[in-house]
Amino acid sequence: MKIELDCLPCLLNQILRASRMVTDDVETHEKILREANDIISKYDSYSYAPEVGRVLHFLVKKHTGIKDPYQKLKQKHLKMALQYYPVLKRFLFDKEDRLYWVLKIAVVGNVFDAAINSEIKDGDDLMKELAVEFKKCELERFRKQLKNARTMLIIGDNAGETVFDRVLIEELLNLEIVYAVRSGPVINDATIEDAEQAGLGRQVKLISTGCDAPGVIRAECNPEFLKVLDEADIVISKGQGNFETLSEEKREIFFLLKAKCPVIAGRIDIDAGDYLFTTYRINN
Amino acid sequence: MKIELDCLPCLLNQILRASRMVTDDVETHEKILREANDIISKYDSYSYAPEVGRVLHFLVKKHTGIKDPYQKLKQKHLKMALQYYPVLKRFLFDKEDRLYWVLKIAVVGNVFDAAINSEIKDGDDLMKELAVEFKKCELERFRKQLKNARTMLIIGDNAGETVFDRVLIEELLNLEIVYAVRSGPVINDATIEDAEQAGLGRQVKLISTGCDAPGVIRAECNPEFLKVLDEADIVISKGQGNFETLSEEKREIFFLLKAKCPVIAGRIDIDAGDYLFTTYRINN
Repeated sequence: MKIELDCLPCLLNQILRASRMVTDDVETHEKILREANDIISKYDSYSYAPEVGRVLHFLVKKHTGIKDPYQKLKQKHLKMALQYYPVLKRFLFDKEDRLYWVLKIAVVGNVFDAAINSEIKDGDDLMKELAVEFKKCELERFRKQLKNARTMLIIGDNAGETVFDRVLIEELLNLEIVYAVRSGPVINDATIEDAEQAGLGRQVKLISTGCDAPGVIRAECNPEFLKVLDEADIVISKGQGNFETLSEEKREIFFLLKAKCPVIAGRIDIDAGDYLFTTYRINN
Repeated sequence: MKIELDCLPCLLNQILRASRMVTDDVETHEKILREANDIISKYDSYSYAPEVGRVLHFLVKKHTGIKDPYQKLKQKHLKMALQYYPVLKRFLFDKEDRLYWVLKIAVVGNVFDAAINSEIKDGDDLMKELAVEFKKCELERFRKQLKNARTMLIIGDNAGETVFDRVLIEELLNLEIVYAVRSGPVINDATIEDAEQAGLGRQVKLISTGCDAPGVIRAECNPEFLKVLDEADIVISKGQGNFETLSEEKREIFFLLKAKCPVIAGRIDIDAGDYLFTTYRINN
Protein backbone atom coordinates (compact mmCIF):
# COMPACT_ATOMS: atom_id res chain seq x y z
CA MET A 1 0.00 0.00 0.00
CA LYS A 2 1.60 3.27 -1.11
CA ILE A 3 2.33 6.21 1.16
CA GLU A 4 -0.53 8.73 1.33
CA LEU A 5 0.11 12.44 1.82
CA ASP A 6 -1.84 12.18 5.11
CA CYS A 7 0.93 9.89 6.41
CA LEU A 8 3.50 12.72 6.30
CA PRO A 9 2.17 15.04 9.05
CA CYS A 10 1.21 11.93 11.05
CA LEU A 11 4.76 10.51 10.82
CA LEU A 12 6.21 13.88 11.83
CA ASN A 13 3.89 13.99 14.82
CA GLN A 14 4.78 10.40 15.79
CA ILE A 15 8.48 11.11 15.81
CA LEU A 16 8.04 14.25 17.89
CA ARG A 17 6.18 12.21 20.53
CA ALA A 18 8.80 9.46 20.35
CA SER A 19 11.60 12.03 20.86
CA ARG A 20 9.85 13.47 23.89
CA MET A 21 9.33 10.01 25.37
CA VAL A 22 13.06 9.33 25.27
CA THR A 23 14.51 12.70 26.31
CA ASP A 24 13.45 16.06 27.74
CA ASP A 25 16.17 17.89 25.83
CA VAL A 26 14.40 20.31 23.49
CA GLU A 27 17.49 20.79 21.32
CA THR A 28 17.53 17.07 20.63
CA HIS A 29 13.80 17.18 19.74
CA GLU A 30 14.58 20.00 17.30
CA LYS A 31 17.48 18.13 15.69
CA ILE A 32 15.38 15.01 15.26
CA LEU A 33 12.42 16.93 13.84
CA ARG A 34 14.60 18.83 11.41
CA GLU A 35 16.11 15.63 10.02
CA ALA A 36 12.72 13.91 10.08
CA ASN A 37 11.37 16.72 7.96
CA ASP A 38 14.15 16.21 5.39
CA ILE A 39 13.36 12.52 5.20
CA ILE A 40 9.64 13.16 4.87
CA SER A 41 10.27 15.54 1.97
CA LYS A 42 11.80 12.58 0.09
CA TYR A 43 8.83 10.34 0.88
CA ASP A 44 8.44 9.24 -2.75
CA SER A 45 11.78 7.45 -2.66
CA TYR A 46 10.17 4.96 -0.24
CA SER A 47 7.58 2.30 -1.10
CA TYR A 48 5.80 2.01 2.24
CA ALA A 49 5.08 4.26 5.24
CA PRO A 50 6.66 1.69 7.63
CA GLU A 51 9.96 2.16 5.72
CA VAL A 52 9.82 5.89 6.44
CA GLY A 53 8.81 5.08 10.03
CA ARG A 54 11.90 2.93 10.49
CA VAL A 55 14.22 5.71 9.24
CA LEU A 56 12.52 8.28 11.48
CA HIS A 57 12.71 6.07 14.56
CA PHE A 58 16.37 5.45 13.72
CA LEU A 59 16.89 9.23 14.14
CA VAL A 60 15.70 8.97 17.73
CA LYS A 61 18.23 6.20 18.37
CA LYS A 62 21.00 8.17 16.61
CA HIS A 63 20.44 11.44 18.46
CA THR A 64 19.91 9.95 21.91
CA GLY A 65 22.37 7.06 21.73
CA ILE A 66 19.64 4.74 23.03
CA LYS A 67 19.57 1.48 21.07
CA ASP A 68 16.02 0.51 21.96
CA PRO A 69 14.05 3.58 23.11
CA TYR A 70 10.90 1.50 23.61
CA GLN A 71 12.42 -1.26 25.73
CA LYS A 72 10.84 -0.08 29.00
CA LEU A 73 7.45 0.41 27.36
CA LYS A 74 7.59 -3.04 25.76
CA GLN A 75 8.42 -4.55 29.16
CA LYS A 76 5.47 -2.69 30.68
CA HIS A 77 3.11 -3.91 27.94
CA LEU A 78 4.39 -7.49 28.19
CA LYS A 79 3.88 -7.43 31.96
CA MET A 80 0.34 -6.05 31.56
CA ALA A 81 -0.49 -8.60 28.88
CA LEU A 82 0.83 -11.49 31.00
CA GLN A 83 -1.45 -10.30 33.81
CA TYR A 84 -4.38 -10.31 31.37
CA TYR A 85 -3.49 -13.83 30.14
CA PRO A 86 -5.40 -15.81 32.85
CA VAL A 87 -8.31 -13.34 32.48
CA LEU A 88 -8.42 -14.07 28.74
CA LYS A 89 -8.33 -17.84 29.32
CA ARG A 90 -11.21 -17.58 31.82
CA PHE A 91 -13.09 -15.29 29.41
CA LEU A 92 -12.73 -17.95 26.72
CA PHE A 93 -13.75 -20.83 28.99
CA ASP A 94 -17.53 -20.87 28.44
CA LYS A 95 -17.62 -19.39 24.93
CA GLU A 96 -19.49 -21.46 22.38
CA ASP A 97 -17.69 -20.36 19.20
CA ARG A 98 -14.15 -20.52 20.55
CA LEU A 99 -12.56 -19.89 17.14
CA TYR A 100 -14.31 -16.53 16.86
CA TRP A 101 -13.23 -15.55 20.36
CA VAL A 102 -9.57 -16.52 20.06
CA LEU A 103 -9.41 -14.36 16.94
CA LYS A 104 -11.10 -11.53 18.81
CA ILE A 105 -8.66 -11.94 21.71
CA ALA A 106 -5.67 -11.93 19.33
CA VAL A 107 -6.86 -8.77 17.60
CA VAL A 108 -7.48 -6.93 20.89
CA GLY A 109 -3.75 -7.34 21.59
CA ASN A 110 -3.24 -5.10 18.56
CA VAL A 111 -4.52 -2.16 20.64
CA PHE A 112 -1.01 -1.74 22.12
CA ASP A 113 0.70 0.71 19.78
CA ALA A 114 3.44 3.05 20.91
CA ALA A 115 3.43 4.94 17.59
CA ILE A 116 0.01 6.33 18.46
CA ASN A 117 0.33 6.05 22.23
CA SER A 118 -2.39 3.40 22.58
CA GLU A 119 -2.62 0.65 25.20
CA ILE A 120 -5.10 -1.46 27.17
CA LYS A 121 -5.22 0.45 30.45
CA ASP A 122 -6.93 -2.05 32.74
CA GLY A 123 -9.28 -5.00 33.00
CA ASP A 124 -12.36 -2.88 32.25
CA ASP A 125 -10.70 -1.52 29.13
CA LEU A 126 -9.82 -5.08 28.10
CA MET A 127 -13.43 -6.28 28.53
CA LYS A 128 -14.75 -3.27 26.63
CA GLU A 129 -12.47 -3.97 23.66
CA LEU A 130 -13.31 -7.69 23.71
CA ALA A 131 -17.02 -6.85 23.52
CA VAL A 132 -16.61 -4.78 20.34
CA GLU A 133 -17.53 -6.92 17.33
CA PHE A 134 -15.42 -7.23 14.18
CA LYS A 135 -16.57 -4.81 11.49
CA LYS A 136 -15.60 -7.39 8.87
CA CYS A 137 -14.77 -10.99 9.76
CA GLU A 138 -14.11 -13.80 7.28
CA LEU A 139 -14.51 -16.42 10.00
CA GLU A 140 -16.21 -19.09 7.86
CA ARG A 141 -13.54 -18.90 5.14
CA PHE A 142 -10.91 -19.35 7.86
CA ARG A 143 -12.81 -22.21 9.54
CA LYS A 144 -13.08 -24.04 6.21
CA GLN A 145 -9.37 -23.67 5.44
CA LEU A 146 -8.42 -24.88 8.91
CA LYS A 147 -10.02 -28.27 8.13
CA ASN A 148 -7.32 -29.14 5.57
CA ALA A 149 -4.45 -27.00 6.89
CA ARG A 150 -1.32 -28.50 8.37
CA THR A 151 0.95 -25.44 8.62
CA MET A 152 0.36 -21.81 9.61
CA LEU A 153 2.47 -18.66 9.67
CA ILE A 154 1.55 -15.86 12.06
CA ILE A 155 3.36 -12.56 11.50
CA GLY A 156 3.44 -10.74 14.84
CA ASP A 157 3.18 -7.03 15.44
CA ASN A 158 3.80 -5.45 18.86
CA ALA A 159 5.41 -6.97 21.95
CA GLY A 160 2.40 -7.06 24.32
CA GLU A 161 0.24 -8.50 21.55
CA THR A 162 2.32 -11.70 21.45
CA VAL A 163 0.67 -12.79 24.74
CA PHE A 164 -2.78 -12.37 23.14
CA ASP A 165 -1.59 -14.32 20.09
CA ARG A 166 -0.58 -17.12 22.46
CA VAL A 167 -4.27 -17.63 23.28
CA LEU A 168 -5.02 -17.99 19.55
CA ILE A 169 -2.08 -20.34 19.10
CA GLU A 170 -3.13 -22.55 22.04
CA GLU A 171 -6.42 -23.13 20.22
CA LEU A 172 -4.62 -24.27 17.07
CA LEU A 173 -1.94 -26.57 18.47
CA ASN A 174 -2.95 -29.31 16.02
CA LEU A 175 -1.15 -27.15 13.41
CA GLU A 176 2.56 -26.67 12.86
CA ILE A 177 2.83 -22.95 13.58
CA VAL A 178 5.66 -20.56 12.78
CA TYR A 179 5.54 -17.16 14.50
CA ALA A 180 7.62 -14.46 12.77
CA VAL A 181 8.80 -11.20 14.34
CA ARG A 182 11.04 -8.21 13.48
CA SER A 183 14.79 -8.83 13.18
CA GLY A 184 15.55 -5.98 15.61
CA PRO A 185 13.88 -3.45 17.90
CA VAL A 186 11.69 -0.85 16.16
CA ILE A 187 9.01 1.14 17.99
CA ASN A 188 7.25 -1.32 20.34
CA ASP A 189 7.23 -4.17 17.84
CA ALA A 190 8.01 -7.68 19.04
CA THR A 191 11.44 -9.25 18.66
CA ILE A 192 12.29 -12.90 19.33
CA GLU A 193 13.18 -12.03 22.96
CA ASP A 194 9.76 -10.41 23.48
CA ALA A 195 7.88 -13.35 22.00
CA GLU A 196 9.89 -15.72 24.18
CA GLN A 197 8.95 -13.69 27.24
CA ALA A 198 5.29 -14.10 26.24
CA GLY A 199 5.84 -17.87 26.40
CA LEU A 200 5.56 -18.48 22.66
CA GLY A 201 8.89 -20.31 22.42
CA ARG A 202 7.39 -23.47 23.91
CA GLN A 203 4.47 -23.68 21.47
CA VAL A 204 5.61 -22.51 18.06
CA LYS A 205 8.73 -22.09 15.99
CA LEU A 206 9.88 -18.52 16.53
CA ILE A 207 11.72 -16.91 13.63
CA SER A 208 12.83 -13.48 12.49
CA THR A 209 11.49 -12.07 9.22
CA GLY A 210 14.96 -10.67 8.61
CA CYS A 211 13.48 -7.17 8.37
CA ASP A 212 13.65 -4.56 11.12
CA ALA A 213 11.09 -2.13 9.67
CA PRO A 214 7.68 -1.96 11.44
CA GLY A 215 6.28 -4.10 8.63
CA VAL A 216 7.43 -6.84 6.24
CA ILE A 217 9.49 -5.58 3.29
CA ARG A 218 9.95 -8.64 1.07
CA ALA A 219 13.29 -7.49 -0.42
CA GLU A 220 14.82 -7.40 3.05
CA CYS A 221 13.43 -10.68 4.39
CA ASN A 222 15.54 -13.77 4.94
CA PRO A 223 15.04 -16.95 2.85
CA GLU A 224 13.76 -18.96 5.84
CA PHE A 225 10.90 -16.52 6.43
CA LEU A 226 10.08 -16.13 2.72
CA LYS A 227 9.85 -19.91 2.31
CA VAL A 228 7.31 -20.10 5.15
CA LEU A 229 5.44 -17.06 3.82
CA ASP A 230 5.12 -18.69 0.40
CA GLU A 231 4.44 -22.26 1.54
CA ALA A 232 2.40 -22.13 4.76
CA ASP A 233 -1.16 -23.38 4.29
CA ILE A 234 -2.54 -20.35 6.13
CA VAL A 235 -0.92 -16.98 6.85
CA ILE A 236 -2.22 -14.56 9.48
CA SER A 237 -0.71 -11.07 9.42
CA LYS A 238 -1.20 -8.91 12.51
CA GLY A 239 -1.54 -5.12 12.56
CA GLN A 240 -1.34 -2.13 10.26
CA GLY A 241 2.39 -2.11 9.44
CA ASN A 242 2.24 -5.70 8.16
CA PHE A 243 -0.93 -4.88 6.23
CA GLU A 244 0.67 -1.84 4.58
CA THR A 245 3.64 -3.88 3.39
CA LEU A 246 1.89 -7.19 2.58
CA SER A 247 -1.45 -6.09 1.16
CA GLU A 248 -0.20 -6.51 -2.42
CA GLU A 249 1.16 -10.04 -1.93
CA LYS A 250 -0.18 -12.58 -4.43
CA ARG A 251 -0.82 -15.36 -1.91
CA GLU A 252 -3.88 -15.21 0.31
CA ILE A 253 -3.22 -13.67 3.71
CA PHE A 254 -5.68 -13.24 6.58
CA PHE A 255 -5.16 -9.72 7.94
CA LEU A 256 -6.09 -9.45 11.61
CA LEU A 257 -5.93 -5.87 12.88
CA LYS A 258 -7.49 -2.90 14.57
CA ALA A 259 -7.66 0.00 12.10
CA LYS A 260 -5.99 2.89 13.86
CA CYS A 261 -5.81 5.57 11.21
CA PRO A 262 -8.36 6.96 8.73
CA VAL A 263 -6.05 6.33 5.75
CA ILE A 264 -5.83 2.57 6.26
CA ALA A 265 -9.44 2.31 7.42
CA GLY A 266 -10.53 4.18 4.28
CA ARG A 267 -8.63 1.76 2.06
CA ILE A 268 -10.52 -1.21 3.52
CA ASP A 269 -13.82 0.69 3.67
CA ILE A 270 -14.14 0.59 7.45
CA ASP A 271 -13.74 3.31 10.09
CA ALA A 272 -10.75 4.09 12.29
CA GLY A 273 -11.20 2.05 15.47
CA ASP A 274 -12.85 -0.92 13.73
CA TYR A 275 -11.64 -4.49 14.14
CA LEU A 276 -10.96 -6.53 11.01
CA PHE A 277 -10.28 -10.12 9.92
CA THR A 278 -10.09 -10.25 6.15
CA THR A 279 -8.25 -11.59 3.11
CA TYR A 280 -8.73 -8.25 1.31
CA ARG A 281 -5.94 -7.32 -1.11
CA ILE A 282 -4.92 -3.89 -2.44
CA ASN A 283 -3.97 -3.59 -6.10
CA ASN A 284 -1.44 -0.78 -6.02
CA MET B 1 4.55 33.41 21.20
CA LYS B 2 7.23 31.32 19.52
CA ILE B 3 6.61 28.41 17.19
CA GLU B 4 6.40 25.07 18.99
CA LEU B 5 7.56 21.84 17.37
CA ASP B 6 3.96 20.58 17.64
CA CYS B 7 2.94 23.34 15.21
CA LEU B 8 4.95 21.77 12.38
CA PRO B 9 2.96 18.55 11.77
CA CYS B 10 -0.23 20.53 12.43
CA LEU B 11 0.66 23.16 9.80
CA LEU B 12 1.54 20.41 7.31
CA ASN B 13 -1.81 18.78 7.96
CA GLN B 14 -3.68 22.09 7.60
CA ILE B 15 -2.14 22.81 4.24
CA LEU B 16 -2.95 19.34 2.96
CA ARG B 17 -6.62 19.89 3.88
CA ALA B 18 -6.57 23.38 2.33
CA SER B 19 -5.13 21.96 -0.92
CA ARG B 20 -7.82 19.30 -1.08
CA MET B 21 -10.54 21.88 -0.47
CA VAL B 22 -9.41 23.88 -3.50
CA THR B 23 -8.59 21.14 -5.99
CA ASP B 24 -8.98 17.39 -6.52
CA ASP B 25 -5.72 17.18 -8.45
CA VAL B 26 -3.40 14.90 -6.47
CA GLU B 27 -0.30 16.11 -8.31
CA THR B 28 -1.05 19.65 -7.13
CA HIS B 29 -1.49 18.39 -3.55
CA GLU B 30 1.91 16.71 -3.82
CA LYS B 31 3.61 19.84 -5.19
CA ILE B 32 2.12 21.99 -2.43
CA LEU B 33 3.05 19.52 0.30
CA ARG B 34 6.58 19.18 -0.98
CA GLU B 35 7.13 22.95 -0.90
CA ALA B 36 5.32 23.21 2.43
CA ASN B 37 7.76 20.68 3.78
CA ASP B 38 10.72 22.84 2.66
CA ILE B 39 9.22 25.87 4.38
CA ILE B 40 8.51 23.96 7.56
CA SER B 41 12.12 22.78 7.70
CA LYS B 42 13.13 26.46 7.96
CA TYR B 43 10.61 27.17 10.72
CA ASP B 44 13.21 28.85 12.93
CA SER B 45 13.62 31.69 10.44
CA TYR B 46 10.05 32.76 11.36
CA SER B 47 8.95 34.39 14.60
CA TYR B 48 5.33 33.19 14.73
CA ALA B 49 3.33 30.21 13.49
CA PRO B 50 0.87 32.54 11.66
CA GLU B 51 3.81 33.77 9.54
CA VAL B 52 4.51 30.20 8.46
CA GLY B 53 0.76 29.73 7.94
CA ARG B 54 0.65 32.68 5.56
CA VAL B 55 3.54 31.33 3.46
CA LEU B 56 1.95 27.87 3.34
CA HIS B 57 -1.46 29.21 2.33
CA PHE B 58 0.30 31.29 -0.33
CA LEU B 59 1.49 28.00 -1.86
CA VAL B 60 -2.13 26.95 -2.36
CA LYS B 61 -2.83 30.23 -4.18
CA LYS B 62 0.37 29.87 -6.26
CA HIS B 63 -0.23 26.30 -7.37
CA THR B 64 -3.95 26.63 -8.08
CA GLY B 65 -4.01 30.18 -9.47
CA ILE B 66 -6.91 30.96 -7.10
CA LYS B 67 -6.41 34.33 -5.41
CA ASP B 68 -8.76 33.70 -2.50
CA PRO B 69 -9.32 29.94 -2.02
CA TYR B 70 -11.60 30.55 0.96
CA GLN B 71 -13.93 33.11 -0.65
CA LYS B 72 -16.86 30.69 -1.01
CA LEU B 73 -16.42 29.39 2.52
CA LYS B 74 -16.24 32.93 3.94
CA GLN B 75 -19.46 33.79 2.07
CA LYS B 76 -21.09 30.68 3.51
CA HIS B 77 -19.98 31.55 7.05
CA LEU B 78 -21.08 35.20 6.68
CA LYS B 79 -24.48 34.06 5.44
CA MET B 80 -24.84 31.62 8.34
CA ALA B 81 -23.75 34.26 10.85
CA LEU B 82 -26.18 36.83 9.45
CA GLN B 83 -28.96 34.27 9.89
CA TYR B 84 -27.85 33.76 13.50
CA TYR B 85 -27.77 37.56 14.12
CA PRO B 86 -31.48 38.02 15.06
CA VAL B 87 -31.27 34.82 17.15
CA LEU B 88 -28.34 36.30 19.06
CA LYS B 89 -30.19 39.59 19.63
CA ARG B 90 -33.24 37.70 20.94
CA PHE B 91 -30.97 35.52 23.09
CA LEU B 92 -29.49 38.68 24.61
CA PHE B 93 -32.88 40.35 25.17
CA ASP B 94 -33.69 39.16 28.70
CA LYS B 95 -30.16 38.61 29.98
CA GLU B 96 -29.32 40.35 33.20
CA ASP B 97 -25.56 40.78 32.80
CA ARG B 98 -25.56 41.92 29.18
CA LEU B 99 -21.83 42.71 29.17
CA TYR B 100 -20.97 39.10 30.01
CA TRP B 101 -23.28 37.81 27.31
CA VAL B 102 -22.11 40.10 24.50
CA LEU B 103 -18.56 38.93 25.23
CA LYS B 104 -19.75 35.33 25.18
CA ILE B 105 -21.56 35.91 21.89
CA ALA B 106 -18.47 37.55 20.36
CA VAL B 107 -16.23 34.66 21.40
CA VAL B 108 -18.62 32.03 20.04
CA GLY B 109 -18.09 33.61 16.60
CA ASN B 110 -14.47 32.49 16.97
CA VAL B 111 -15.64 28.88 16.46
CA PHE B 112 -15.57 29.45 12.68
CA ASP B 113 -12.06 28.40 11.64
CA ALA B 114 -11.24 27.04 8.23
CA ALA B 115 -7.69 26.10 9.25
CA ILE B 116 -9.11 23.39 11.49
CA ASN B 117 -12.39 22.88 9.63
CA SER B 118 -14.58 24.20 12.45
CA GLU B 119 -17.93 25.98 12.12
CA ILE B 120 -21.25 26.51 13.91
CA LYS B 121 -23.42 24.00 12.11
CA ASP B 122 -26.92 25.08 13.14
CA GLY B 123 -29.03 26.82 15.76
CA ASP B 124 -28.67 23.96 18.23
CA ASP B 125 -24.91 24.08 17.87
CA LEU B 126 -25.02 27.83 18.43
CA MET B 127 -27.04 27.50 21.64
CA LYS B 128 -24.77 24.73 22.89
CA GLU B 129 -21.67 26.90 22.41
CA LEU B 130 -23.36 29.93 24.02
CA ALA B 131 -24.16 27.84 27.09
CA VAL B 132 -20.52 26.88 27.65
CA GLU B 133 -19.00 29.16 30.30
CA PHE B 134 -15.67 30.95 29.96
CA LYS B 135 -12.84 28.95 31.55
CA LYS B 136 -11.21 32.26 32.50
CA CYS B 137 -12.99 35.61 32.23
CA GLU B 138 -11.63 38.96 33.43
CA LEU B 139 -15.07 40.53 33.20
CA GLU B 140 -14.77 42.80 36.25
CA ARG B 141 -11.42 44.25 35.11
CA PHE B 142 -13.03 44.98 31.73
CA ARG B 143 -16.19 46.46 33.30
CA LYS B 144 -14.06 48.77 35.45
CA GLN B 145 -12.00 50.00 32.51
CA LEU B 146 -15.12 50.62 30.42
CA LYS B 147 -16.22 53.26 32.94
CA ASN B 148 -13.40 55.64 31.96
CA ALA B 149 -12.78 54.48 28.40
CA ARG B 150 -13.51 56.61 25.39
CA THR B 151 -11.84 54.62 22.59
CA MET B 152 -11.58 50.91 21.78
CA LEU B 153 -9.76 48.81 19.21
CA ILE B 154 -11.12 45.42 18.27
CA ILE B 155 -8.81 43.24 16.17
CA GLY B 156 -11.02 40.87 14.19
CA ASP B 157 -10.28 37.29 13.27
CA ASN B 158 -12.45 35.30 10.86
CA ALA B 159 -15.11 36.54 8.45
CA GLY B 160 -18.25 34.97 10.00
CA GLU B 161 -17.11 36.11 13.45
CA THR B 162 -17.48 39.79 12.46
CA VAL B 163 -21.27 39.39 12.70
CA PHE B 164 -20.93 38.13 16.28
CA ASP B 165 -18.59 41.03 17.06
CA ARG B 166 -21.34 43.37 15.81
CA VAL B 167 -23.49 42.29 18.75
CA LEU B 168 -20.65 43.20 21.14
CA ILE B 169 -20.10 46.52 19.35
CA GLU B 170 -23.81 47.44 19.49
CA GLU B 171 -23.59 47.17 23.28
CA LEU B 172 -20.65 49.57 23.39
CA LEU B 173 -21.78 52.31 21.00
CA ASN B 174 -20.98 54.98 23.60
CA LEU B 175 -17.33 54.28 22.68
CA GLU B 176 -15.41 55.33 19.60
CA ILE B 177 -14.58 51.92 18.18
CA VAL B 178 -12.05 51.00 15.51
CA TYR B 179 -12.33 47.50 14.05
CA ALA B 180 -9.14 46.25 12.36
CA VAL B 181 -8.90 43.37 9.89
CA ARG B 182 -6.30 41.70 7.62
CA SER B 183 -4.99 43.71 4.65
CA GLY B 184 -5.79 40.87 2.23
CA PRO B 185 -7.43 37.43 2.10
CA VAL B 186 -5.73 34.70 4.12
CA ILE B 187 -7.50 31.47 5.15
CA ASN B 188 -11.05 32.49 6.22
CA ASP B 189 -9.92 35.65 8.03
CA ALA B 190 -11.98 38.83 7.65
CA THR B 191 -11.02 41.58 5.22
CA ILE B 192 -12.67 45.03 5.05
CA GLU B 193 -15.17 43.71 2.47
CA ASP B 194 -16.19 40.88 4.80
CA ALA B 195 -16.64 43.19 7.80
CA GLU B 196 -18.71 45.56 5.64
CA GLN B 197 -20.92 42.64 4.62
CA ALA B 198 -21.47 41.91 8.32
CA GLY B 199 -22.79 45.48 8.67
CA LEU B 200 -19.87 46.81 10.73
CA GLY B 201 -19.17 49.76 8.39
CA ARG B 202 -22.14 51.70 9.78
CA GLN B 203 -21.11 51.37 13.41
CA VAL B 204 -17.34 51.52 13.70
CA LYS B 205 -14.34 52.76 11.81
CA LEU B 206 -13.10 49.84 9.72
CA ILE B 207 -9.37 49.75 9.04
CA SER B 208 -6.75 47.34 7.77
CA THR B 209 -3.87 46.33 10.03
CA GLY B 210 -1.63 46.48 6.97
CA CYS B 211 -0.66 42.84 7.54
CA ASP B 212 -2.04 39.89 5.56
CA ALA B 213 -0.79 37.12 7.83
CA PRO B 214 -3.42 35.30 9.96
CA GLY B 215 -2.25 37.39 12.91
CA VAL B 216 -0.78 40.84 13.63
CA ILE B 217 2.94 41.13 12.86
CA ARG B 218 3.92 44.57 14.18
CA ALA B 219 6.76 45.11 11.68
CA GLU B 220 4.31 44.77 8.80
CA CYS B 221 1.48 46.91 10.17
CA ASN B 222 0.61 50.36 8.85
CA PRO B 223 1.09 53.52 10.97
CA GLU B 224 -2.66 54.15 11.22
CA PHE B 225 -3.28 50.78 12.84
CA LEU B 226 -0.20 50.98 15.09
CA LYS B 227 -1.32 54.39 16.38
CA VAL B 228 -4.71 52.96 17.36
CA LEU B 229 -3.08 49.86 18.86
CA ASP B 230 -0.83 52.00 21.02
CA GLU B 231 -3.37 54.69 21.96
CA ALA B 232 -6.81 53.10 22.27
CA ASP B 233 -8.07 52.99 25.85
CA ILE B 234 -9.04 49.36 25.50
CA VAL B 235 -7.88 46.73 22.98
CA ILE B 236 -9.71 43.48 22.37
CA SER B 237 -7.86 40.90 20.27
CA LYS B 238 -9.93 38.06 18.81
CA GLY B 239 -8.72 34.52 18.16
CA GLN B 240 -5.56 32.44 18.31
CA GLY B 241 -3.56 33.99 15.44
CA ASN B 242 -3.80 37.45 17.00
CA PHE B 243 -2.92 36.00 20.41
CA GLU B 244 0.15 34.23 19.02
CA THR B 245 1.47 37.44 17.47
CA LEU B 246 0.35 39.98 20.14
CA SER B 247 0.82 38.07 23.38
CA GLU B 248 4.20 39.74 24.00
CA GLU B 249 2.96 43.33 23.44
CA LYS B 250 3.75 45.68 26.32
CA ARG B 251 0.35 47.36 26.42
CA GLU B 252 -2.58 45.59 28.02
CA ILE B 253 -4.74 43.64 25.58
CA PHE B 254 -7.90 41.68 26.32
CA PHE B 255 -7.62 38.40 24.44
CA LEU B 256 -11.02 36.95 23.55
CA LEU B 257 -10.76 33.51 21.99
CA LYS B 258 -11.70 29.88 21.89
CA ALA B 259 -8.56 27.75 22.45
CA LYS B 260 -8.45 25.36 19.55
CA CYS B 261 -5.11 23.63 19.93
CA PRO B 262 -3.34 22.02 22.89
CA VAL B 263 -0.20 24.15 22.39
CA ILE B 264 -1.95 27.49 22.85
CA ALA B 265 -4.30 26.13 25.52
CA GLY B 266 -1.26 24.77 27.38
CA ARG B 267 0.42 28.17 27.34
CA ILE B 268 -2.59 29.79 29.02
CA ASP B 269 -3.13 26.83 31.33
CA ILE B 270 -6.56 25.93 29.96
CA ASP B 271 -7.72 23.00 27.79
CA ALA B 272 -8.29 22.90 24.05
CA GLY B 273 -11.95 23.82 23.50
CA ASP B 274 -12.09 26.29 26.42
CA TYR B 275 -13.32 29.88 26.04
CA LEU B 276 -11.12 32.67 27.32
CA PHE B 277 -11.26 36.43 28.06
CA THR B 278 -7.97 37.50 29.61
CA THR B 279 -5.19 40.08 29.68
CA TYR B 280 -2.59 37.31 30.11
CA ARG B 281 0.80 38.07 28.56
CA ILE B 282 3.53 35.66 27.44
CA ASN B 283 7.12 36.56 28.19
CA ASN B 284 8.97 35.03 25.28
